[in-house]
Amino acid sequence: MEYLKLKNVDITGGFWADKQKLNREVTAGVVYDRFSETGRFDSLDCLWKEGDDKHIKPHFFWDSDVAKWIEGVSYLHSKSPEAELLEKANKAIDSIIANQWSDGYINSYYTVTETQDRFKKRNRHELYCIGHLIESAIAYTEASGDRSFLDAVERCMELVEKIFIKEGSAPFKTPGHPEIELALVRLYRYTGKKKYLDAAEFFISKRGEDELPSANEYPIKKYGQDHLPTRKQTTAEGHSVRAAYLYTAMADLAFELGDKELGESCKAIFEDIVNRKMYITGGIGSSFLGETFTVPYDLPNEHAYAETCASIGMIYFCSRMLRLEHKSIYSDIIERELYNGALSGLSLDGDKFFYENPLEINLKKRSRNVCSIQQERFPITQRVKVFGCSCCPPNLVRLIASVGEYTYAVEDKTVWVEQFMDSRAEQNGIKICQETNYPNESTVRITAEGTEKLCIRIPSWCDSFEASVPYTVENGYAVIENPSSVEINLNIKPVLISANVEVCDNVGKAAIQYGPFVYCIESVDNVENLHSLYIDKDVEWESEFKPEFNASVLKLKGWRKISDNKLYSKYTEDLEPYTVTAIPYHAFANRGECDMAVWIKVK
Amino acid sequence: MEYLKLKNVDITGGFWADKQKLNREVTAGVVYDRFSETGRFDSLDCLWKEGDDKHIKPHFFWDSDVAKWIEGVSYLHSKSPEAELLEKANKAIDSIIANQWSDGYINSYYTVTETQDRFKKRNRHELYCIGHLIESAIAYTEASGDRSFLDAVERCMELVEKIFIKEGSAPFKTPGHPEIELALVRLYRYTGKKKYLDAAEFFISKRGEDELPSANEYPIKKYGQDHLPTRKQTTAEGHSVRAAYLYTAMADLAFELGDKELGESCKAIFEDIVNRKMYITGGIGSSFLGETFTVPYDLPNEHAYAETCASIGMIYFCSRMLRLEHKSIYSDIIERELYNGALSGLSLDGDKFFYENPLEINLKKRSRNVCSIQQERFPITQRVKVFGCSCCPPNLVRLIASVGEYTYAVEDKTVWVEQFMDSRAEQNGIKICQETNYPNESTVRITAEGTEKLCIRIPSWCDSFEASVPYTVENGYAVIENPSSVEINLNIKPVLISANVEVCDNVGKAAIQYGPFVYCIESVDNVENLHSLYIDKDVEWESEFKPEFNASVLKLKGWRKISDNKLYSKYTEDLEPYTVTAIPYHAFANRGECDMAVWIKVK
Repeated sequence: MEYLKLKNVDITGGFWADKQKLNREVTAGVVYDRFSETGRFDSLDCLWKEGDDKHIKPHFFWDSDVAKWIEGVSYLHSKSPEAELLEKANKAIDSIIANQWSDGYINSYYTVTETQDRFKKRNRHELYCIGHLIESAIAYTEASGDRSFLDAVERCMELVEKIFIKEGSAPFKTPGHPEIELALVRLYRYTGKKKYLDAAEFFISKRGEDELPSANEYPIKKYGQDHLPTRKQTTAEGHSVRAAYLYTAMADLAFELGDKELGESCKAIFEDIVNRKMYITGGIGSSFLGETFTVPYDLPNEHAYAETCASIGMIYFCSRMLRLEHKSIYSDIIERELYNGALSGLSLDGDKFFYENPLEINLKKRSRNVCSIQQERFPITQRVKVFGCSCCPPNLVRLIASVGEYTYAVEDKTVWVEQFMDSRAEQNGIKICQETNYPNESTVRITAEGTEKLCIRIPSWCDSFEASVPYTVENGYAVIENPSSVEINLNIKPVLISANVEVCDNVGKAAIQYGPFVYCIESVDNVENLHSLYIDKDVEWESEFKPEFNASVLKLKGWRKISDNKLYSKYTEDLEPYTVTAIPYHAFANRGECDMAVWIKVK
Repeated sequence: MEYLKLKNVDITGGFWADKQKLNREVTAGVVYDRFSETGRFDSLDCLWKEGDDKHIKPHFFWDSDVAKWIEGVSYLHSKSPEAELLEKANKAIDSIIANQWSDGYINSYYTVTETQDRFKKRNRHELYCIGHLIESAIAYTEASGDRSFLDAVERCMELVEKIFIKEGSAPFKTPGHPEIELALVRLYRYTGKKKYLDAAEFFISKRGEDELPSANEYPIKKYGQDHLPTRKQTTAEGHSVRAAYLYTAMADLAFELGDKELGESCKAIFEDIVNRKMYITGGIGSSFLGETFTVPYDLPNEHAYAETCASIGMIYFCSRMLRLEHKSIYSDIIERELYNGALSGLSLDGDKFFYENPLEINLKKRSRNVCSIQQERFPITQRVKVFGCSCCPPNLVRLIASVGEYTYAVEDKTVWVEQFMDSRAEQNGIKICQETNYPNESTVRITAEGTEKLCIRIPSWCDSFEASVPYTVENGYAVIENPSSVEINLNIKPVLISANVEVCDNVGKAAIQYGPFVYCIESVDNVENLHSLYIDKDVEWESEFKPEFNASVLKLKGWRKISDNKLYSKYTEDLEPYTVTAIPYHAFANRGECDMAVWIKVK
């Protein structure tokens, strides 16, 4: 199967149309401005010199920031012309091309400093940046019809092939940070040139062979997924963004080569993530130490790392897994990431970002560092405009601009509705349309032309799926033969979710799932001490639509633990009735700094 | 009132007689051996020179380690001759005296290095060491009748008075680490020389006036209780051991001078500790960052610092508060520390020690540091033989040897039974005797001679106090006029204790108090995942005496949360009946490394 191409899918209304409008009108410009202020665009001109204080010295990963932004702008422009943003992208691309080395090399850092050391240090992200340039150039060529950027990037790839594959003259075999692997499969698909698939296969197969400087220990090897050859890997390990990008490429390659062994690795890793290492928000990578996956069921709420880019990476991984085996779980996880762990990276006004996405904020605990210069570390509580390592903001720009890509899949005359979005799509004689205000309404009207079979994902959170026509169920999809028009009802209502008992912080607690949204509680709507609240296990609820969230607020029957001023006293339950107010998780931290919790005590 | 003097009180049987036997036969010798191996005794000879590898360079606080050990040995010897240990103490004292400077200065570190820098650096613990030498010398003189050690220490104090009080020639006014203040009050009481009380008053009154190098910020001043003049302090702040020693001296001075303002400060600080900043075990100082008190209700279980020395310091503070106002709460807290937060510092076999006393161990969380050289910090899980900064072991030796000191108070013909211990005491015509196997039995038979009034503490955990003779209640004591013999029954049974709702980790949980013991659960007796356990709020229990703990194990009706292999599923309670086994908290970590918890879910 293939996804219906982004250019053929239009999000026409509802939740994601609003997010795309915000992305187009605010976020894309804000990311440009912040990157411009911090020198990321000017540094592409490669004018900085040692001792120079007129120009800003680039960082070795800045090319990737710009590339992701250009990729996002290209998606925007492909749907509706964006003259101003495209002009800025063109200028950046011109600078990149103008400063390409005669042998094809591109990296603004190594062009102005340490020029003798290019391709010498494995963790210096040169191949990672080239990977992002490849993805960016493909998107730009698609959107603009101008392939000069792609030509430059292909010349760069000739150098990479020479150094890494033909000569093996670099002191390492595989990139410290994966990305080029998935970009190469994409480049192969776009150009049809098999050498790019071969290069992807090379980098994926050689992984695990590099000796790490001063660190042969197993734990450190895990950090960069270097602990085993990729085909022997069965668990999610190490830096979560590196991991997700690598697994994406592994699944891509397993599909393109029909490589069963690699496919089994991908499936095992996916199972390990979703059954042992993923937050209910879809967040992955639970430790800030190394930004890594840790051990099964280690999912602390307050110290969650759950990087925005890791959730986006998980979307990429799942989208590739869907091609390997067409099961609804992959689109379920994509939905979980889209509405929760990825989207929480963006403020409601579209101009501020989270890098980390904790599942709990407790401001009192943050005030405990009273007597020491050394501070206990906590994730930040409010989104900011830009980071020193600002990978997440442009990743959100390109994700949101391309969210239509995950909506429909097609194979021959069969169409799958993977995501519910008010949309129209047309490709090769197939027409499909959804009319819906999902997830703020439970009903979706779907019309299809030119299809013999329509498969509609039954979300895993939905235990009452209804359709206006007869259907069978296959791999998690409602299958309708010879469809023309169908109305489905997902009967969205709040459901309490338990975590596995091994997730020690969550025993006796539940998370609230309301359609695709995971909910959270914030002090601004409740009492200051969120630990004192309980919700009723039998869920008595009311909802009220709030335009500022483009979603509903839930009012849930519950209780509040009260106590006198004593520090310790004889145990009593001492609960008084309390109505708990919950909002969608992705919308937390938009109304000032306050406590927040996803997991709530249940009685 | 006064406590009955240690020399007049004999613990004759039961729990503390056993602990004292262990201290005498094992702990005192073990601390000597470890200190000897690490060079703490040899370094008193002051033979180390720069570049010397035959001798060990002393640390500037080592004198205090030795002093506390000598103090403990003196208490042991005062109750029953200890030829071998005393011989070792004598040798150490000879070295200290032989290396005293001609002007009286004592400190083995500054005698062999940085000799020009003595009394130059406020945090170098010289006055702290001298304080411990004073306490040690008083105990030694009492026990041996030989006052040469005390003479040397008094000569040292002449130098301290000259430098700090008469000349003010040191670059600081008050010690970085309090201790000398309480030692000086003790020296005043022992010698009757008012100059020592004046010196204590000087150091206590000048606190808050020192400028700290490179740190005028409020938080750092709090670390050393330098944020305010002592009489303006009303909250417990900073390094918890420094704080407890300072507060002890403040209460001492408030009593000796009848200083109401200082007394009010002490009361406010005491209230702040016991109502907002103390673990149920009596542990104080909840952060390892600076080993400090933090903010009210910040009492994390797993990351508790709760230093053994801080619990011991809290015993000193409470014992002085009891003289300021005779209320049972002070002896209640002393009991809490003795049976829990202080005693947990010692292994059941008497030869290993905890510095930190966490209220929860979760081994899985400790395995999460998988991919980074930087490690998340946790307290150690098993007691060790010695620490680099090994203040706690000798502090336990002197505490346990002198525990009889906290048993009885006296004023004229009134006697207070502050602690329940099988014991006999005789002083100035008053005879008092307790026959009991408390806390392993609920009954205590008390006989008294030469008293007009007997006041027996009604423990705060006891809600069913019975006595064989009529009594009234005053300040938490059962008051019996013209007593001769009385049997009391404390009706010990497990009681569940709630923490204030502001202690966020403990909401919905209870701690088990069984007489003076706080209990805990360990994986070795239960399931591996202690977070899955619940106990019945109505407490159905059985107890079984276990000689290895010299206490009872409790079997409590409860439940265990079970779940399938899924990471997330629809909320269900899924509890199966389970009998939870609990042991006294102080006995945790004596049967191999495993999970532990004091606070347990209640249903």
